[in-house]
Amino acid sequence: MKLVELTAKVSGVLEGDGNLEITGIAGLAEAGAGDLSFLSNPKYAALLTDSRASAVIVSEDWAGENACAVVRVKSPDEAMALAAALLGPSCDPVVEPGIHRSAVVAESARIDPTVRIGPLCVVEPGAVIGARTVLVAGCYVGRDAVIGSDTILHANAVVRERVKVGDRVILHDGSVIGGDGFGNYLENGEWRKIPHIGTVEIGDDSEIGVNSTVDRARFGKTVVGRGVKIDNLVMLAHNVKVGDHTAMAAQVGISGSTTVGRYVMLGGQAGLAGHLEVGDGAVVGAQSGVSKSVPPKTYVTGYPAMPHRKAAEGHANLMRLGGWKERVKELEARLAAMEVRLSAGASPEENS
Amino acid sequence: MKLVELTAKVSGVLEGDGNLEITGIAGLAEAGAGDLSFLSNPKYAALLTDSRASAVIVSEDWAGENACAVVRVKSPDEAMALAAALLGPSCDPVVEPGIHRSAVVAESARIDPTVRIGPLCVVEPGAVIGARTVLVAGCYVGRDAVIGSDTILHANAVVRERVKVGDRVILHDGSVIGGDGFGNYLENGEWRKIPHIGTVEIGDDSEIGVNSTVDRARFGKTVVGRGVKIDNLVMLAHNVKVGDHTAMAAQVGISGSTTVGRYVMLGGQAGLAGHLEVGDGAVVGAQSGVSKSVPPKTYVTGYPAMPHRKAAEGHANLMRLGGWKERVKELEARLAAMEVRLSAGASPEENS
Amino acid sequence: MKLVELTAKVSGVLEGDGNLEITGIAGLAEAGAGDLSFLSNPKYAALLTDSRASAVIVSEDWAGENACAVVRVKSPDEAMALAAALLGPSCDPVVEPGIHRSAVVAESARIDPTVRIGPLCVVEPGAVIGARTVLVAGCYVGRDAVIGSDTILHANAVVRERVKVGDRVILHDGSVIGGDGFGNYLENGEWRKIPHIGTVEIGDDSEIGVNSTVDRARFGKTVVGRGVKIDNLVMLAHNVKVGDHTAMAAQVGISGSTTVGRYVMLGGQAGLAGHLEVGDGAVVGAQSGVSKSVPPKTYVTGYPAMPHRKAAEGHANLMRLGGWKERVKELEARLAAMEVRLSAGASPEENS
Repeated sequence: MKLVELTAKVSGVLEGDGNLEITGIAGLAEAGAGDLSFLSNPKYAALLTDSRASAVIVSEDWAGENACAVVRVKSPDEAMALAAALLGPSCDPVVEPGIHRSAVVAESARIDPTVRIGPLCVVEPGAVIGARTVLVAGCYVGRDAVIGSDTILHANAVVRERVKVGDRVILHDGSVIGGDGFGNYLENGEWRKIPHIGTVEIGDDSEIGVNSTVDRARFGKTVVGRGVKIDNLVMLAHNVKVGDHTAMAAQVGISGSTTVGRYVMLGGQAGLAGHLEVGDGAVVGAQSGVSKSVPPKTYVTGYPAMPHRKAAEGHANLMRLGGWKERVKELEARLAAMEVRLSAGASPEENS
Repeated sequence: MKLVELTAKVSGVLEGDGNLEITGIAGLAEAGAGDLSFLSNPKYAALLTDSRASAVIVSEDWAGENACAVVRVKSPDEAMALAAALLGPSCDPVVEPGIHRSAVVAESARIDPTVRIGPLCVVEPGAVIGARTVLVAGCYVGRDAVIGSDTILHANAVVRERVKVGDRVILHDGSVIGGDGFGNYLENGEWRKIPHIGTVEIGDDSEIGVNSTVDRARFGKTVVGRGVKIDNLVMLAHNVKVGDHTAMAAQVGISGSTTVGRYVMLGGQAGLAGHLEVGDGAVVGAQSGVSKSVPPKTYVTGYPAMPHRKAAEGHANLMRLGGWKERVKELEARLAAMEVRLSAGASPEENS
Repeated sequence: MKLVELTAKVSGVLEGDGNLEITGIAGLAEAGAGDLSFLSNPKYAALLTDSRASAVIVSEDWAGENACAVVRVKSPDEAMALAAALLGPSCDPVVEPGIHRSAVVAESARIDPTVRIGPLCVVEPGAVIGARTVLVAGCYVGRDAVIGSDTILHANAVVRERVKVGDRVILHDGSVIGGDGFGNYLENGEWRKIPHIGTVEIGDDSEIGVNSTVDRARFGKTVVGRGVKIDNLVMLAHNVKVGDHTAMAAQVGISGSTTVGRYVMLGGQAGLAGHLEVGDGAVVGAQSGVSKSVPPKTYVTGYPAMPHRKAAEGHANLMRLGGWKERVKELEARLAAMEVRLSAGASPEENS
């Protein structure tokens, strides 16, 4: 595709040779001749200088130097998403129409005729699957589960009985929605199971990462809101509620009955204790251990997590302790010298 | 079901209208008219006051205010487990009797006639499966594995060759028992595999969470005792031994050859180094990093983990460092002033 | 097998009765009569003294006491690997030759005739699988994926479309290679997906642990080098590059675009932020939180991670804070006493 055509497709403004043939798409560091690349985060501007890309998508107000052709756009991320769709391989799973002969689909399941069910999937009685939804392979959909339209279940994804999954949801490979909640009580020295008879609801446009797990509620439901983005190996326990448009990085763990607000960001490996509230727009740093509720729009880090400024100050103080130690030692020496001096000579009192 | 009947079923003492029709079961916050709810942990008593539940199960000695009917019982958790079984949907997987036509079961496997094997399961030669055990779907049971009676393998659970799983065990979806141990040695700059020819034994009444992994031993066996409760995404490495009735929350990791005692509690995301001993009844806080053995009945927290009191004191000291800094600065100023004062005037010695 | 034969097989030097019949292999603590055991790490020498093993493999220069027969070898680890192969059960998966009748293999897939494909595997169109490679059961190989020779995919392993896996690679049960990268940008208050059109390459002789996940790149590829050893439940994000012969313990997480060098060791549950460089031969302690690049051959620990010496010093300082507090308090008391003394009597100045 000629660069001038591509520029039009992404509604950009071209600076450079529109006749350039764009044959691929790559990161700034890896790009070569014929490749389109992009600069979204100004932090990586240095990479642009050294890039061998033929053309680079930048933001409208980009003021740096560039050796190659430049396409100015409002949102480089959006433009690159468009360009990737035009130039790259498809990201959509390719599954033949209909139900694969090897799949085991219960007669009583209500499957929209436009659904594609790949090999070796299981759909249990009473399950409902909406229009254009795709089950790639080896997926399991339990009894009376309800899955919306345009949703994708990647290989080996599991949706347990009675779980509800919305429209345009992506369940990545090996993710498990609706596993049993973890709760037990001791009775005569034995753990007895607390039945978890609730379910899970995953809102529209949400995404659950590879091998992540969302447990069902004790009663009622565990809720993942709309447009929630969850990375790999994340654990949401029973009765957790996650607000719309919240994002969490890999290996986050959220304990039972904790409520996370809207537009919250949880860094990788962060852990949240149970029965907490994390307010809208809060940000939790990677690996933080959240043991108390977090007010809205608060950035917390550390173990235990606290407002970042306080955590950073605590850490800085810790790192300076060596210096303070020396100052205390010096104080002790000076004070001792003074005491000796006062005692050795006539004390002021004795002078009077 | 009328409240009076339900009260009888849970051996409770009713205060209120026995004719109330109970139609559902819910948490205090979510319950509405017709719902039964419960108060187990007095910490959440405030929720009872505001609850719209029609009836609430409380402990015998509950002394709080209540607007609705109350059923007093010895153990609210146990009563609610009973009530959930009566009023809620079944938590048991529903699998047709016999072996599903799509399952691949070796002829030499010894399968009790009461076993239920769901669609697309694989049972390899020489495996043994006891009475009333259920394989839901997509499960894998390796060669010569031995699985007891009344055990459940949820979707995609994997039991590798030669592993032994006891009676009434629950292996949740995607859990893998008996994966290869992780051990290598360097030889001429290359990692060489240490063969792990041992196996895993899971004791009766234990539970392994969704997508959790228990690796087999180098020699001998990795052991999970009786009545052990393990949450999701937990990793037990080769040769780990876990004592009876121990519980561990999600994302815990235990390194090779560590021995954990009986009735131990491990908080979420806690990590234990290898070759340690954690004594009976010890408690490890969430996200703690255990690098030394833990004596019995000791509560440790922190990174590195230490007795909680010491960890908390260390943290409190850290948080107060700002104040101590000021005190040291003030000391320096006062001492300097005194030194100036002593030097400016005749020093005591000179006065003599 | 007689001990003298075994000694020959491992090229060892025997001290003791060569006629001893060796019937099993076990760790020092568990070994009994007839068992061969070994001492690799001198740290566990005490176990040898108490061991009931009939024979023990030790290093050439072992100088300790031993009650039983001893076989001296250059590398005890290597000798034990050989002995395990001779005496123990096979660690190789047993899969019938050919393609199991229940597997779903696309006609256009190019499968070497020596490949073994177990029950209920899926191989999509265009996939290529090299000589002697084994798919155990329930595995998924996506479109145009390329898998080398002598590679093993354990139960339920997933290799997504276009991913390349080298020779002699082991993908453990439930591992997922090539899942979608996690990246989104906000547009009018909604997360929009950043397409990840890249792929993953796993080098020869590498190993990916049970339920571990390696995401595909935004563009280009996520790379796991040669001879890399990755334990269970590890997460490698999009565009991560891992150098040859690097090893990482369970539950490690590496964020997007971070580059890890050769011969790096990452301890369990360590987390690495994105866009970092970890130099060759670096070592990251368990649970460390790496937020800055790590120079080659540097040992870092802590949260945030820093050179271990500094982290340990910081921790030691923290633990001694109680003592410093007392010293500051004492300084304050002594200084106050001195101030009182100076003020109470005639001040030195007044004496002049």
